[in-house]
Amino acid sequence: MTPVTSGSGRTLSELFVTAAKQALDEAGVGEIDSIYVGNMMSGFLQKQEHLGALMATALGQEGVSTYKVEAACASGGVAVNAAVKALLSGLEEIVLVGAVEKMSGYTTPEVTTGLMMAEDRMKVASTGVTFVGLNAMIARAYMHEYGITHESIAQFPVLCHKNALDNPNAQFRKKIGVQDVLQSPLVADPLRLFDCSGIGDGAAALVLAPKDMAKKFNDSPVEIAASTVASDTLSLYQRPKITTFEASKRASNRAYKLAGIKPEDVDALEVHDAFSVLGVMALEDLGFAEKGAGTHLLDEGECERDGRLPTNSFGGLKARGHPVGASGVYQIAELAMQLENKAGKCQVSGARIGLAQSVGGIGSTVAVHILRAMN
Amino acid sequence: MTPVTSGSGRTLSELFVTAAKQALDEAGVGEIDSIYVGNMMSGFLQKQEHLGALMATALGQEGVSTYKVEAACASGGVAVNAAVKALLSGLEEIVLVGAVEKMSGYTTPEVTTGLMMAEDRMKVASTGVTFVGLNAMIARAYMHEYGITHESIAQFPVLCHKNALDNPNAQFRKKIGVQDVLQSPLVADPLRLFDCSGIGDGAAALVLAPKDMAKKFNDSPVEIAASTVASDTLSLYQRPKITTFEASKRASNRAYKLAGIKPEDVDALEVHDAFSVLGVMALEDLGFAEKGAGTHLLDEGECERDGRLPTNSFGGLKARGHPVGASGVYQIAELAMQLENKAGKCQVSGARIGLAQSVGGIGSTVAVHILRAMN
Repeated sequence: MTPVTSGSGRTLSELFVTAAKQALDEAGVGEIDSIYVGNMMSGFLQKQEHLGALMATALGQEGVSTYKVEAACASGGVAVNAAVKALLSGLEEIVLVGAVEKMSGYTTPEVTTGLMMAEDRMKVASTGVTFVGLNAMIARAYMHEYGITHESIAQFPVLCHKNALDNPNAQFRKKIGVQDVLQSPLVADPLRLFDCSGIGDGAAALVLAPKDMAKKFNDSPVEIAASTVASDTLSLYQRPKITTFEASKRASNRAYKLAGIKPEDVDALEVHDAFSVLGVMALEDLGFAEKGAGTHLLDEGECERDGRLPTNSFGGLKARGHPVGASGVYQIAELAMQLENKAGKCQVSGARIGLAQSVGGIGSTVAVHILRAMN
Repeated sequence: MTPVTSGSGRTLSELFVTAAKQALDEAGVGEIDSIYVGNMMSGFLQKQEHLGALMATALGQEGVSTYKVEAACASGGVAVNAAVKALLSGLEEIVLVGAVEKMSGYTTPEVTTGLMMAEDRMKVASTGVTFVGLNAMIARAYMHEYGITHESIAQFPVLCHKNALDNPNAQFRKKIGVQDVLQSPLVADPLRLFDCSGIGDGAAALVLAPKDMAKKFNDSPVEIAASTVASDTLSLYQRPKITTFEASKRASNRAYKLAGIKPEDVDALEVHDAFSVLGVMALEDLGFAEKGAGTHLLDEGECERDGRLPTNSFGGLKARGHPVGASGVYQIAELAMQLENKAGKCQVSGARIGLAQSVGGIGSTVAVHILRAMN
């Protein structure tokens, strides 16, 4: 992983290559069969597509099979899913999957327009509503429907900022309290600055290989026990209920089944907290709390690193940072470090099973990965 | 397939849904597991990403797994490859793969900038060279290196226009001769208007299922005997030789091996003739002629529908049309119709094995599919 920063001054390929080389070096891998690149906004912001061939060339790996996979903010998670299927197909053996996003160096209207590519340009974006505006509607509805206060929800970014203090790759390494969230500048009512993830550049990468080969590359390999992708309607207005993400339920239910585990078996969780309320909703939609009861886990300290359900232990989207198309791979890389017992100061003691949830658009696409320590 | 037209007045999702519904109806399929969408330029031209969820919603299939796959002009072919691996993984059974591009309704500079997203924005596009300009360099080098005349190469678009007369979906249904090509307006020396594919809107879709299920959906199913993707350096300037596409050789050699066939076994061929010289080079790089001898096949009429190697029997990129990210799926749909003996006036008599070559960028990515009649 590269550190997430705003104003990295680095190109898409410089970012990607940094993460990819680190992954290949760590695995001791030279030859690979294919490269999967997750990215959302390069066509719009950098006027650059064809990232598969671009990254293969930048890595000196031209010749291999190459792919760009896009699913808005879930691009990273969905790219990993595509790479997993490539392995299972038997056609590829050693796969590099990485994701990259460069969001800094553009005006706020440019980035805002870019983010709204995740929603329906013609029917929704054209009305002038922004991505944070849509998420603000969810926050308002959630607070109203379940009688939850902003104070309660604000515990989520507070937790993420606390965890990020120990993560050298985190964008925001600054302790904040609930009052800091409530008093930060209003972005889209009720969401305030510290309810929202920031704008950042970053890349993360993984090397995947069949299970029976994994020991060759790693003393403490991690199995991808389940990899699923599910969708919902593209737009929020098309759903009967906006305070739950059906795609999260679909993807996670299938993943639990494939991995043969239950939510209570999860030792480390990474959720897509692009906005504070989404972190809380994820706890519910993934089966860790009843609807409306997500904040109780925060009240009781269960999401802390030493709690029952350590969540976003490296800082999550809020504080590690959210280079949108790349975040899904950051999550999985972080979980892998947890399960390898290589998470340094972020380590969750004795973690054996991890779950990552990556969300594209306003819950329109959700990728879920369940990882398991093999040792 | 939708007819390829310039100025369809239809949105991305209208185009995609038209093709996808036709594919699902024809297969008699209601429930699907996933949707793979090939597309190159929607982020840049339509400011719309997240086409997976967009198309699932437009089709009333929200819930399924969804993906956008991008590899410049090879996006369609590469999307089919990703879908094939999804089937082989065993995680998905019935897969809809389609591709769409909407290029009309924009200024020429906009579309030209969009196409150059296939090359390196920072190091190549920034110099001012255009996509057609780079292909013109290839044409000049090819003619010089092998002593081939423009007259000889011009036979390729002449063949395509002739074949397109019988294809109701073709963009250019107009017979032309070699002199028409040579006297058409100069675009980028030596390439003239009729050497170049046009700007068009279009979508094509396929339904894929495991072989043992295929009979349920089709009396004359077609097997995907091989599906490969290979890359080369992103940029032309990075290659020692520009008159051959190594990625074509890599992808096709692996495909021949996977399918257990030789070039001479191919009964119907679809090549990526975005520019006339690329059609000729493809004949060589795919193993049908020695280097520099591609035009001999045209001289001898072997690429005609009743020849030894019927090529671009529906009109190819030049005359059927080239909605860039979608063309790779058009090719495979057309080959499937040939092998099902449902190609109408375009039918190649007794075709059993087909090969499609889809090129992304200036030969930077090549997808090859070999199809075989199962009956």
